[in-house]
Amino acid sequence: MSTLNLNILGCGSATSTLRHQPSCQVLDVRGKLFMIDCGEGAQLSMRKMRLKFSRLNNIFISHLHGDHCFGLLGLISTMALLEKGGTVTVHIFKDGAKMFSELLDYFCRERPFDLKFNIIDTHPAVIYEDNSITVSTIPLSHRLPCVGFIFREKPKLRHINPEECAKHNIPLHAMNLLKNGMDYVSPDGQVIPNDVLTTNPEKAVSYAYCSDTKYSKRVIDSVRDVDWLYHEATYGDENIKNAVSRYHSTARQAGMVASEAHVQKLILGHYSSRYVEEDVLLSQAQEEFPNTMLAMEGLKIDLSDV
Amino acid sequence: MSTLNLNILGCGSATSTLRHQPSCQVLDVRGKLFMIDCGEGAQLSMRKMRLKFSRLNNIFISHLHGDHCFGLLGLISTMALLEKGGTVTVHIFKDGAKMFSELLDYFCRERPFDLKFNIIDTHPAVIYEDNSITVSTIPLSHRLPCVGFIFREKPKLRHINPEECAKHNIPLHAMNLLKNGMDYVSPDGQVIPNDVLTTNPEKAVSYAYCSDTKYSKRVIDSVRDVDWLYHEATYGDENIKNAVSRYHSTARQAGMVASEAHVQKLILGHYSSRYVEEDVLLSQAQEEFPNTMLAMEGLKIDLSDV
Repeated sequence: MSTLNLNILGCGSATSTLRHQPSCQVLDVRGKLFMIDCGEGAQLSMRKMRLKFSRLNNIFISHLHGDHCFGLLGLISTMALLEKGGTVTVHIFKDGAKMFSELLDYFCRERPFDLKFNIIDTHPAVIYEDNSITVSTIPLSHRLPCVGFIFREKPKLRHINPEECAKHNIPLHAMNLLKNGMDYVSPDGQVIPNDVLTTNPEKAVSYAYCSDTKYSKRVIDSVRDVDWLYHEATYGDENIKNAVSRYHSTARQAGMVASEAHVQKLILGHYSSRYVEEDVLLSQAQEEFPNTMLAMEGLKIDLSDV
Repeated sequence: MSTLNLNILGCGSATSTLRHQPSCQVLDVRGKLFMIDCGEGAQLSMRKMRLKFSRLNNIFISHLHGDHCFGLLGLISTMALLEKGGTVTVHIFKDGAKMFSELLDYFCRERPFDLKFNIIDTHPAVIYEDNSITVSTIPLSHRLPCVGFIFREKPKLRHINPEECAKHNIPLHAMNLLKNGMDYVSPDGQVIPNDVLTTNPEKAVSYAYCSDTKYSKRVIDSVRDVDWLYHEATYGDENIKNAVSRYHSTARQAGMVASEAHVQKLILGHYSSRYVEEDVLLSQAQEEFPNTMLAMEGLKIDLSDV
């Protein structure tokens, strides 16, 4: 079973359309859900994709444009009505924390969970960590303070090779050491190398989310060597002027970032409402970086598959 | 052509479902659109029902629960992006005006239209008037200040009978007087009664929107003799206790209000998420008031048809 699945809830841009929802993704890390941006309608998309509110405890907001955060009010209110427990942390810029906490204190006073706001800024930092992942911010270049998020799985445990362990009479209490990569030293001082007794674990996968941003060398440096990159691709080549003036990217520029940063796979999104289908964006990006795919509402992507 | 069409954009209650959107309606008065409540997703439902943002200049918010107003942020932002002009007036309680104006000043600073907030309270008042309609508030009985809205068409102009007017040599300049119901007095003093020269106009229709409220005699008095009544019907008979404690109504109570107020037709809505279909609510209401129908997302109702 995959340990890391990305759910695309919305990949449109600011002007709403019937084709796309505003920005929202949910990363499923072994059953724990992490929401990335929360455009209007996020709660409904959660239901459509059968993602459980009870498993969502962290929401990351990249910047304070409405198409990335207007869904917070409805989402948090619904989680309160459903009597979700525990803690919900919204990672957000300071102004957003102030505004949304005031509104939620008014509209959603009685909350069965603790609602916390973790203030982020544009300085790169690890803003979340648990047993399986870390989440870091990276600065993006947009019209207002904006960050991307990199989700990195922690190195996974090595797999025990039962036959070899039996052959070498390895005691049970040594298994954890083996899983963590240690060699086995027997009571009589004999060393059995770890790679005899174990096999490699699955690769620890990394995923970078970059929306909204203009093409930026700094972004390339920040996402270098990640496995998966989601990069905004608001426009096609013909609208490069809009991309520059509005601090957005073309699909081709997204491909260039992926190529220059040596990532494994690129996912495009944040499409301008002017595109009634996105194949033109895909092919322009693929000219720069062939291993590119289009985000689409309802899509589940197995990020372990790299 | 009908002069008054009601569009149902959302008729669910607070807990979101895949079956229903939160409360939102758009009344189309000869092409002018009036939005009544604005739950999350209202802007998308506008697009789905092909209602033009350019024709929407008045939004009426019944009370400050999220399922009745969280769509305002996205809707106003989209209207700004689409470069709508003119004035948009949000009729809303004072706290809502303060909170939403602050948020929109942050998220939607550059607006090509004037955004006005008309502060309403629970004292019955005419809060809007133009050439064709008036809109009045009526107090409802909910857990917090809440009003209903009554839309009343103004009396319509009488229709000229061209044959009779020709026979009596009525001059063109007299037509407006005739349409307004005046008799014609010829230069030689002869009086020709209006009803010889004109026929009756279409009926001026009235529509009352009542959500959210418990069963209330005061509501019955307020909506007496309206043509159409939308009344919340959150619960069925078996949940009367919830209805009472949460200041909502059962479908049967909605039927009783319609019956006691002598309205022509009743529309039910604001269904609790527990009902996977609403036929049980319809039949309970119809036992009290047979001329009852269910609101449903996407439904257009010709209110002229009474």
